[in-house]
Order: sequence, then structure tokens, then C-alpha cells
Amino acid sequence: MNSQSPISNLQSPLGIARAITQVERGGENTRQLIRALFPFTGRAHIVGVTGAPGTGKSTLVNALAKELHARAKRVAIIAVDPSSPFSGGAILGDRFRMQDLAGTGIFIRSMASRGQLGGLAAAVADALLILDAANFELILVETVGAGQGEVEIARHAHTTLVVEAPGLGDDIQAIKAGILEIADILVVNKADREGANAAAAALEMNLNLNPNKAAWRPPVLKTIALTFEGVNKVVDAIMKHAAYLDEKQLRVPRERARFDRELRGLLERELLERTLRRVTPARWDEWLRQITQRQRDPYSVAQEILDS
Amino acid sequence: MNSQSPISNLQSPLGIARAITQVERGGENTRQLIRALFPFTGRAHIVGVTGAPGTGKSTLVNALAKELHARAKRVAIIAVDPSSPFSGGAILGDRFRMQDLAGTGIFIRSMASRGQLGGLAAAVADALLILDAANFELILVETVGAGQGEVEIARHAHTTLVVEAPGLGDDIQAIKAGILEIADILVVNKADREGANAAAAALEMNLNLNPNKAAWRPPVLKTIALTFEGVNKVVDAIMKHAAYLDEKQLRVPRERARFDRELRGLLERELLERTLRRVTPARWDEWLRQITQRQRDPYSVAQEILDS
Repeated sequence: MNSQSPISNLQSPLGIARAITQVERGGENTRQLIRALFPFTGRAHIVGVTGAPGTGKSTLVNALAKELHARAKRVAIIAVDPSSPFSGGAILGDRFRMQDLAGTGIFIRSMASRGQLGGLAAAVADALLILDAANFELILVETVGAGQGEVEIARHAHTTLVVEAPGLGDDIQAIKAGILEIADILVVNKADREGANAAAAALEMNLNLNPNKAAWRPPVLKTIALTFEGVNKVVDAIMKHAAYLDEKQLRVPRERARFDRELRGLLERELLERTLRRVTPARWDEWLRQITQRQRDPYSVAQEILDS
Repeated sequence: MNSQSPISNLQSPLGIARAITQVERGGENTRQLIRALFPFTGRAHIVGVTGAPGTGKSTLVNALAKELHARAKRVAIIAVDPSSPFSGGAILGDRFRMQDLAGTGIFIRSMASRGQLGGLAAAVADALLILDAANFELILVETVGAGQGEVEIARHAHTTLVVEAPGLGDDIQAIKAGILEIADILVVNKADREGANAAAAALEMNLNLNPNKAAWRPPVLKTIALTFEGVNKVVDAIMKHAAYLDEKQLRVPRERARFDRELRGLLERELLERTLRRVTPARWDEWLRQITQRQRDPYSVAQEILDS
């Protein structure tokens, strides 16, 4: 951290990248940085993009970023990616897409979950604040996979896009993974493949089954991200959803839910850290030995730690 | 809970199902149940099965269970599934596979993540203890998706199987998702599809790149679960890995890692609960309002709660 104000450090991509590296490390420096930046946040529109592997999600995110950029928006991408232990996190695909965006002015950053998911979620939350303070108008947060952890991260968004592709399995992935609930926009990518219309129809049918008829019905859009087909309409839908949130004053409740989650996560991690600081490694090892040998159960050990 | 001993309640599938429903609810009754059962656990071999949607993972798990059952093993399946909000968690596929196993004596249970992932991980950990105490020799834990949360759950296992299928995307899913690290056995399912040999070769190549040459090199096996082709060899590999863990005395370190994780999770949840009990809803709402309006940042609010 240099002596300049944290905001002036965010004027170059390098400064932004360094700030994100800082929040990935956590600790007191991160807390200070976020405290300093926080008053300058709250203007970015955050778009979460989630879906199963193989849906062409990364290609779609790049295409959306380019289209938004063409509409004179300042755009950043955070690609949340479980890390590959052999390659150290950065995979070939990442490098391709970074090259694809090189020179466009679109900021892109991969964030990998080297440790616990909780730690990653916190780092992503902080990275969003950094990009927001750095004056990006639209931030696309892409999560690989359709697991519950990824869904949690997507919930930080103002607008959530769920991406499907035909022919990935016997059933529509979003329905299987139970993430239709959080979708504001549904995209069937690789729409030139057989089964695209059936996939879109299945999604529409499931939306009809939804008992919660909200004012916003998620549109089901078909794209071929590789050739930009349909990308324009997805960007229109994002803009329309952003306007809808403003019109119905739904932006504040979404922000509340986001920070409620974040605050709980911060408390959980800090409480655990403080508690474990009072436990010697030898003591912890002995407890694990007792549990492993079935002399004691995890619940009563937890109770003892909490009562001490 | 009736007045009989908790163990005698686990003699029927209905009793087991009720005990699992109990641990899904959490609370003091769950703690009591696990304390009573815990001394009777530690004999089951837990096999985690993970992989992306569309790999035919469920069909493979059913086939493995049948083959293990044919070898006179007592087998149970826990299928961890993010819940579908529209269908209430139970989806058509679940019912098919339950019918598929009806009358075989194989126990199967779906567990859905209705709330936080932490809650689900704890419920799955407790369900494993119940099935262990109920004398199942092999427990297959299947997790949908390849997200980090799913990987965490798979880490509870003694043997972890990662399932791939050809043609799901441009790259091998396990590499993308960084879950090769945790695989003890790699399976390329749907091996009658084009690209199966290439997928297997890519996995072998990645194993060659692994700098950590352990005594156990994960075998890469091809299956067609639908016709049982190759299923026999996967079961052989599971048995071989179980024997390897015993021979190298690796079972205890794996159990330690499992309970280390579980203990931290229990502490985290209980600490947060205790802390939030001291905060009035009105106070919490006011803090969220201040954060949303950027009058205060999440870190300083967390600090205030922790210091109070």
C-alpha cells in the first residue's frame, strides 16, 4: 500500500489488480482498504452469470462485456474459478479470453478458491467493492459450475443470468440444480445445437409452474455467443432489468440481502479465528485424536471449546 | 425420538430415514442423537462421487451400489442435491432412481441444500454417522456439480471418485474445476461416446504433470453405467483403494481431516448463533441500513458487534 489515497491507486488496471490481490490475502490491510473505499461504492450494477460447465458461459461473458463496452459502458469481469492444483489456478482458457479482451479497456480478473469457499466469497465481495469504487458501471461476475456455493456468490448480484446449453445431459441443468429461483434472465447458449428450442420451451414451462408470480418474468433468450448472435438482446434485457429494479425500488432490498450475507460471513470467520487463537495446536490435535478413536464426539468437543 | 436406544431405532429403513430427517433439522435433539450414536461409528467406508452435471453420475452410483450389493456388501447412497425451489427438492430423476433400487435392500436418501451450504455439509456429515452406526459397510455420497462446495462435501470420503463424460464442453471438466487433486479414482463415463479415449488420455496426461508423486496413482477407468460396462472394475478399484489406505495407515489422517473440518463448521455456526442472539432484529436492520446507504462499512460494523 503506498501513501496515496486508496481511490487514486485505482486509476490504473495495475492499481486495481494490486488492490484485488490485497483483499485475496485478507487481514487488517484488507479491512483498512475496504473501509477507505466503501464510501465511494454503490454505483456499479453487478451482473452475476452462472451455469454448468460446458454451456459456453465464458464466451458469453466476454461477448456481453464487448457489447456493453460498445455501448460506452465501463465494464469489468470477475471470473470465479475453483483453482486447478496442478496448473496453479491459471488455465489455458483464461489466457485465451484475456487475449480476446486485450486492448479493449475491459478489466478482467480470475479469482480462484484455493482455500475455503467462505474465504473466496469474502474476497469476491471485496473485489466487487474495489471495482465499484474504481468507477466501473457494470461488473460481470461469472461463477463456474452450478453448485450451491456458486449460487451464493451469484446472489451478490443485482441481476442474475443463468446460462444453459442444449445437449449437456438428459435434463435442463438449471432445473436440476435448483437455480431457476435466482435467475432474472435465462439464456440458452449454443442455440445452433439440436435441442435448443426444446430447452427454451422447458425453461418457459418451468417458469409457468412458479407459484410466485412476480412483476418480473425472467425472459428466456437464445444466443450463439461465439458469433455474437442474440448477445445484443441479452444486454437489452440486463438494462431493462436494471431499470425495473430502480422503478420498483428493489435495488435497496437486494443490497440489504447482499450485505446481510456478507456481515454474517465476516462475523463467522472472525469469531472462529478468535476462538481458535485460544486453543493450542497440541490441544486441538488431542481432541481430533479422541474423536477419530471415537472416545468423544464432535458435538461435545465443540461444546467444551465454546464453554471454555 | 422414542424411548428406545438410538441404535435399535436404526434397524429399519424407516428408522434410519427418520434419524436423517432429525439431523437435517439440527438443534439440541440432533446433538443428543449424534452423541449417542458416535461410539458405534467408524467402520463404514465412505466413497465420495463428484463430477459435473450430465456425466451420468447418478446412473453410475446406482450401478456401483448394485455391484457392491451383489458382492454381499451393505450399501447406502446419499445423493446431495441443490434443491429445486419449484418442485420442493424431489425431482423426477430422483424418483426414477429410487424405483430402480426398490426391493434391493440398498438404502438411498436425497439431501437438498435448502439453506446455507454450511448447514447442508453438517447434515450430510451427521447422516454419514447415522448410516455408519446403522452398519452400512459402504456409503456412496454423490454430489451434483463440480463447485467448491461439492468438493468440500466429497472430502469427507475415504475414497473420492471423479466422474467425467466426453463431449460436455471444450475442456475436461475435472481439470477446469480443479478437482483432480482430490480424485482417488477417475471415471470416464458414457465411454461409448465419441471422444472418450481422448478424455481418458487428457486425464492421464494431467496426472503425469502432477508434481506430487504419491504411492497411489489414480486409475483412469472407462464405463458405460447404463449397460454396467466397466462398473466391475470401478468397484475393484474402490476395494483396492480401501486396502491401500489400511496398508499405508492413511485411514486415520483422512478421518482427522474430516473431523477437523466438521469441528470448525460446528464452532462457526454455533458462535454466529450465540453472537446474533445478543443482537436485536431492529439493531441488525439499522446496521444494514447504514451499510446500504454507505454511512458505515461491513468491516467496522462487524468489529462493533465483536467488541460489544
